[in-house]
Amino acid sequence: MSGLKRYQPDPKLDLVLERVIDVPKELVWRAWTEPELIKKWFTPVPWQTVDCEIDLRPGGLFRTVMRSPEGQEFPNTGCFLEIVPHERLAWTNSLEPGFRPANIDSPELAACGKFPLTAVITLETQGKGTRYTAMAMHKDEAGRNQHAAMGFEAGWGKALDQLVAHVKTL
Amino acid sequence: MSGLKRYQPDPKLDLVLERVIDVPKELVWRAWTEPELIKKWFTPVPWQTVDCEIDLRPGGLFRTVMRSPEGQEFPNTGCFLEIVPHERLAWTNSLEPGFRPANIDSPELAACGKFPLTAVITLETQGKGTRYTAMAMHKDEAGRNQHAAMGFEAGWGKALDQLVAHVKTL
Repeated sequence: MSGLKRYQPDPKLDLVLERVIDVPKELVWRAWTEPELIKKWFTPVPWQTVDCEIDLRPGGLFRTVMRSPEGQEFPNTGCFLEIVPHERLAWTNSLEPGFRPANIDSPELAACGKFPLTAVITLETQGKGTRYTAMAMHKDEAGRNQHAAMGFEAGWGKALDQLVAHVKTL
Repeated sequence: MSGLKRYQPDPKLDLVLERVIDVPKELVWRAWTEPELIKKWFTPVPWQTVDCEIDLRPGGLFRTVMRSPEGQEFPNTGCFLEIVPHERLAWTNSLEPGFRPANIDSPELAACGKFPLTAVITLETQGKGTRYTAMAMHKDEAGRNQHAAMGFEAGWGKALDQLVAHVKTL
């Protein structure tokens, strides 16, 4: 538990979705770390996640491709930072795989809805379910506010609904 | 060894200093991970490193304060990424401690000589000494070229000379 306490959100800079869900954390972990499962839930419908690559180690690739209802594809590349099986998963788009600094921070990219982001997913057993905490960390208040305005809470919440529904079918 | 092979420099984006030095890697590791030792060698004279904080874990703080011959101080904050004792140390300024995206990538900061950087130090025993490899990874060719023009090779080489001279006194 002491490790989990490391990530304390800063309300000015971070966005947090916390919820207790009625599936065990081992299934949530699978949903976050197996590409074929990611495709089933990661993007709120009618958007889709049409491709995913995961190299599950610090410095490893986390790549997704989202497809809009109109058919436009949006690739995202990230780098895993910390992996504690069934407990915590952290990744960022501020680094490319292999920890190389990424080209993610510019006014032009911000205008397209891309900004530096680190995500930390924390899973804790609660009864027969899981306390699920997703924290999105930004470099400044502008990044946080842009992400909030883009619908972080509704979007990540709807994706989590999809995750729960899908892992119940496994 | 397979782990060491992960970090393959890209000549267009990276700068590498590789040298065999006549001190054992355990002492080189100490020089890189103990704040009081960092202060002795990290900055080529007549510059000084006047303060250093190290929290040696992934996500932990790596902070130095350099002082120019004129007395101006330049703080640098980084975040450790990978720590393999006596073998490899990786850190970046693209993230703040706790993996938060850092505000390091802007034309204004580049004009002050600050740009996104990940450094990977690799140590391998060679005879009674150490094969020392320092790789600086950049997000693009402009960053690499700026760092080269600022004197990466001479600067990191002179600092390494200071490291070797100091650890021989321990």
